[in-house]
Amino acid sequence: MNNTEKIPYFHTKLTDGFWAQKQALNRDTTVFAVRDRFEETGRFEAFKCLWDESKEDEGCIRPHIFWDSDIAKWIESVAYIIQAQGNDELESKVDEVVELIEKNRGDDGYFNIYFTVCEPDNRWCVRDAHELYCAGHLMEAAVAYYEATGKKKFLDIMCDYADYIEKVFKTDDSAEFSTPGHEEIELALVRLYHATGEKRYLELSKFFIDKRGTSEKDAAIFSPEYNQSHLPVRLQKTAEGHCVRACYLYSAMADLAKEYNDKELFDACCAIFDNMTQRRMYVTGGLGSTREGERFTVDYDLPNATAYAETCAAISLAMFAGRMLQISQNSKYADIAELVMYNGFLSGMSLDGKSFFYENPLEIDLQEREFKKAQGKKEKYPITQRVEVFNCSCCPPNVTRFIASIGDYLYSKNDSTLWVHQYMSADTSVNFAGKETVIKQRTSYPDSGKINLAISNPPKQLALRIPGWCDSFSVMLDGEEAEYTQDKGYIYIKCKGDAVAVTLNLFMEASLIAANPKVRADCLKSAVRLGPVIYCAEGVDNGENLSALKLHVPLKYSECRDAQLGCKVLDVEGYSFDSEHFDGLYNRYGTAVCPKTIRLIPYYAFANRGETDMRVWLG
Amino acid sequence: MNNTEKIPYFHTKLTDGFWAQKQALNRDTTVFAVRDRFEETGRFEAFKCLWDESKEDEGCIRPHIFWDSDIAKWIESVAYIIQAQGNDELESKVDEVVELIEKNRGDDGYFNIYFTVCEPDNRWCVRDAHELYCAGHLMEAAVAYYEATGKKKFLDIMCDYADYIEKVFKTDDSAEFSTPGHEEIELALVRLYHATGEKRYLELSKFFIDKRGTSEKDAAIFSPEYNQSHLPVRLQKTAEGHCVRACYLYSAMADLAKEYNDKELFDACCAIFDNMTQRRMYVTGGLGSTREGERFTVDYDLPNATAYAETCAAISLAMFAGRMLQISQNSKYADIAELVMYNGFLSGMSLDGKSFFYENPLEIDLQEREFKKAQGKKEKYPITQRVEVFNCSCCPPNVTRFIASIGDYLYSKNDSTLWVHQYMSADTSVNFAGKETVIKQRTSYPDSGKINLAISNPPKQLALRIPGWCDSFSVMLDGEEAEYTQDKGYIYIKCKGDAVAVTLNLFMEASLIAANPKVRADCLKSAVRLGPVIYCAEGVDNGENLSALKLHVPLKYSECRDAQLGCKVLDVEGYSFDSEHFDGLYNRYGTAVCPKTIRLIPYYAFANRGETDMRVWLG
Repeated sequence: MNNTEKIPYFHTKLTDGFWAQKQALNRDTTVFAVRDRFEETGRFEAFKCLWDESKEDEGCIRPHIFWDSDIAKWIESVAYIIQAQGNDELESKVDEVVELIEKNRGDDGYFNIYFTVCEPDNRWCVRDAHELYCAGHLMEAAVAYYEATGKKKFLDIMCDYADYIEKVFKTDDSAEFSTPGHEEIELALVRLYHATGEKRYLELSKFFIDKRGTSEKDAAIFSPEYNQSHLPVRLQKTAEGHCVRACYLYSAMADLAKEYNDKELFDACCAIFDNMTQRRMYVTGGLGSTREGERFTVDYDLPNATAYAETCAAISLAMFAGRMLQISQNSKYADIAELVMYNGFLSGMSLDGKSFFYENPLEIDLQEREFKKAQGKKEKYPITQRVEVFNCSCCPPNVTRFIASIGDYLYSKNDSTLWVHQYMSADTSVNFAGKETVIKQRTSYPDSGKINLAISNPPKQLALRIPGWCDSFSVMLDGEEAEYTQDKGYIYIKCKGDAVAVTLNLFMEASLIAANPKVRADCLKSAVRLGPVIYCAEGVDNGENLSALKLHVPLKYSECRDAQLGCKVLDVEGYSFDSEHFDGLYNRYGTAVCPKTIRLIPYYAFANRGETDMRVWLG
Repeated sequence: MNNTEKIPYFHTKLTDGFWAQKQALNRDTTVFAVRDRFEETGRFEAFKCLWDESKEDEGCIRPHIFWDSDIAKWIESVAYIIQAQGNDELESKVDEVVELIEKNRGDDGYFNIYFTVCEPDNRWCVRDAHELYCAGHLMEAAVAYYEATGKKKFLDIMCDYADYIEKVFKTDDSAEFSTPGHEEIELALVRLYHATGEKRYLELSKFFIDKRGTSEKDAAIFSPEYNQSHLPVRLQKTAEGHCVRACYLYSAMADLAKEYNDKELFDACCAIFDNMTQRRMYVTGGLGSTREGERFTVDYDLPNATAYAETCAAISLAMFAGRMLQISQNSKYADIAELVMYNGFLSGMSLDGKSFFYENPLEIDLQEREFKKAQGKKEKYPITQRVEVFNCSCCPPNVTRFIASIGDYLYSKNDSTLWVHQYMSADTSVNFAGKETVIKQRTSYPDSGKINLAISNPPKQLALRIPGWCDSFSVMLDGEEAEYTQDKGYIYIKCKGDAVAVTLNLFMEASLIAANPKVRADCLKSAVRLGPVIYCAEGVDNGENLSALKLHVPLKYSECRDAQLGCKVLDVEGYSFDSEHFDGLYNRYGTAVCPKTIRLIPYYAFANRGETDMRVWLG
């Protein structure tokens, strides 16, 4: 363990390029689109806590157990957005919600829409009813809103709530269960501790973490693994159960490992991270091999067409990876965060910023779905087009908050070193040994691997990540070839003087990648990666039978820019087994092979041109 | 249409080689094994018609609706066996059964175990209750037994039954339905007509065929397509529904097309045959893409691991193909019969002749099954090892009767020509224009493609099939290169003199075959065929991950004989994507590719060395 401090999002302002554009889209479109859908579905109205059965005829919608968290994540997004660039309309909307929470919370500090209006007598009775999960998201929102605006009311309300939760769960042990059915509050309490300095909140988080997997009061939901209650967390070595729950837990475990210098907890995090990313993760950074329980299954089980790979799960993996990076300066953590950002996370949102995937499959084969239907199989496949809102609409506000706070992932530091984890154009100010260091990063990454860093008042040492996808690079310091040492995927460069200019050139060439042959679904197949971006083939470009396409080995390709998609696309040499040239049902092998140029687009851009087949893994 | 006469099995005696060995195994082992299992399960006892509910405690088993047919097919097998080589033990067992049928049939001629003892008031009420199906199999058995022994009692009993059926269905139309829910009697009535010369039976068959798909009394079972009742048969152009029912129907349609010179019926048969074999058939000759309804699904839907490919369905396809060959001398029909014999049929029986597959999958991947289980999917896979008896044990006695009567498929003739459809060592005597022609065929086919034919009193013309798998051949007539003409897959040779000696040399080399790229399940894959035999890889020879094997293109291989399996096996050059040499989960493509010699065995021999993975289609 080697603790460093993350340089948080509010020190960083993206200036231009890939993520600045996404943030602009998020700020101008997505956050409003999510707000509008939440208005229409009664989620904001629900904070008035006016529902009763008699009002259903008047159109008053019965709230769902996770509606608090939907709005909380939206508030968190708003906080990040107004922190970067104020917006009175959004801010007053948040203030309204906070007023309603203040008005409708219990005298004891409790606040939960569903239990207040639907089941007032059943507070803290059902472990899987998301009460602590909703509380956690409200706490995160309150912290973010406080950080963005300085307004303390929401934070105070949430501190009262946390105090009450401490009493119920830790002091009195009076709830029907001991630990949350859906983790979240554990990491939220760490944030609350950082925002308030109240160590009680950190200790309450540790209480929940230590208690998990040990309490007889904690009923299994589906199975003990489903919410990571099968073992005390320090004995857990594999990624199990519902993926989002899992990674929220692991994120909190990493937070606590750092705060308490808890080596045992850190070791568990390391083992779980490696199991997850080296055995149970899609090449896109997606998590979850089945919709049954939205969960991990077993090592190497990664079906493509029925991949669950929930957008929230990708986000939660980035959260876990980002936290691991603060304890262990190993580029594998930043690599995974990057993989998620450009692929399994970003595919969750349409290019116009208005609609979302909950599940992110790696293959859509409409004909195969027809075959399964004809066989009488009731296989449930992911939807093929993004939608604006879901009944369980956890992903859309998670997307907006992740994009708005992506600055969190750029840098970390200790007294002497600045680590550069991610590459995007941004201005960052941070205090190093009493002096203000200003970091100006400029790049057109991921379109190019060239990154310029201009740093005033630099720290003693600069650490730059060499991404796992990159085979060769060059680095210049103040116009000359830089001297560096290399450790765990970072190059370390000594800095001198009042300012340094560093140019890192990551050689970026598309390459073919293979999955471990134990992954049955990808055997003999390959995927194409360019920089951190995973590519896919779509039917709209390549015809109706993507399973008949074969890539030329070694890879031969040309790049061009697709105006409609607004990104770099690849034309790759390959072959097509063409049924038009195939006589009958069985024939000599090779008679129907035609050369074919296969158009590949970034995976994150799939399903933006109507319903069509898609494949990441090609023959 | 160009009608010829099949030279029936009882004119032919296999002398040695592949099928003679199978017949010996059938005669010495299989027919007894099936008998013993049928004794143990109460199927013979049931012919005493003593069951009533009160006797269940004494161990008297309630008969099933298709038990008559199980024993009937066994009797048919016995008839073929004792026709070739008498066996008193078997013959007296049959006589016992016939006595019981005579004793327990109704005064009106009706005989059906189930309805007699279980539902005496419900005769002819339920279309799917297999009454006419059982009647048909009893008729086939009676004809075969009469042909083998000259004993007429069973045949007479069945004529009475047929007369009664004619009255109920054709004269009085008094049953609750018009046509059988499970076809079979239609083709049986044609056999009864040939055995007795009574044209009424042929007309009754035509009545059932013409009526199908036209009667409001015929309730749909699952769907109208399930038992081919969706359209009048002459309008049917695709193979639909339950495969065995379908091919029994199509066999009868072909019979009637020939008997009545019915061009419309023949055209329907042609269209259906082509749809089935060019769109909906496994490369092994297996039929049925789903266990849900044991049926055809849609064009090109041929999943391997969940293939149904029932043994009975393969047999029924050979029956249909054999009949088509009597109307149209096109080698495609004999090719399909051969494909079935050496592959999708033969895989149904273990090498020791004692156990059977009902389903014949083209892929077993035990790990993939574990993956599906871990995903919470309730996929039903075929069993991995043959068993001795099934509850619905239609396949085992169908296997024994098919092997025992395989001589049916060798030859057909008209006044001037003898067609040689299949290659196996056999002596056959047949009358050509008043003279006895003796055909002595000698070959070690399918181990070799060399076939010698010595024919005394030859007909004017000899037609030899050049199999679809064969790219080049040579043919000698009386020691000199033969002159021939070629038409629809047959070479035609003029014969002169009292005797001719013909040597046909079919060049036999293993080759790679591909499926039409529309078959998603086989895309980019290939299978290996040597002569008529389709090969497969098993885990026991090739390690635990067959999906990671890739064949070298073009095919390079050596042959050897496997003593345990008693057949030719192939060692094929290829590659293995080896997880032991693969670092992590995703990596550069090609880093883990090792050359590997892949052992292939005949598909029919799979699953004879314990539970292990298997694949026909390889990368």
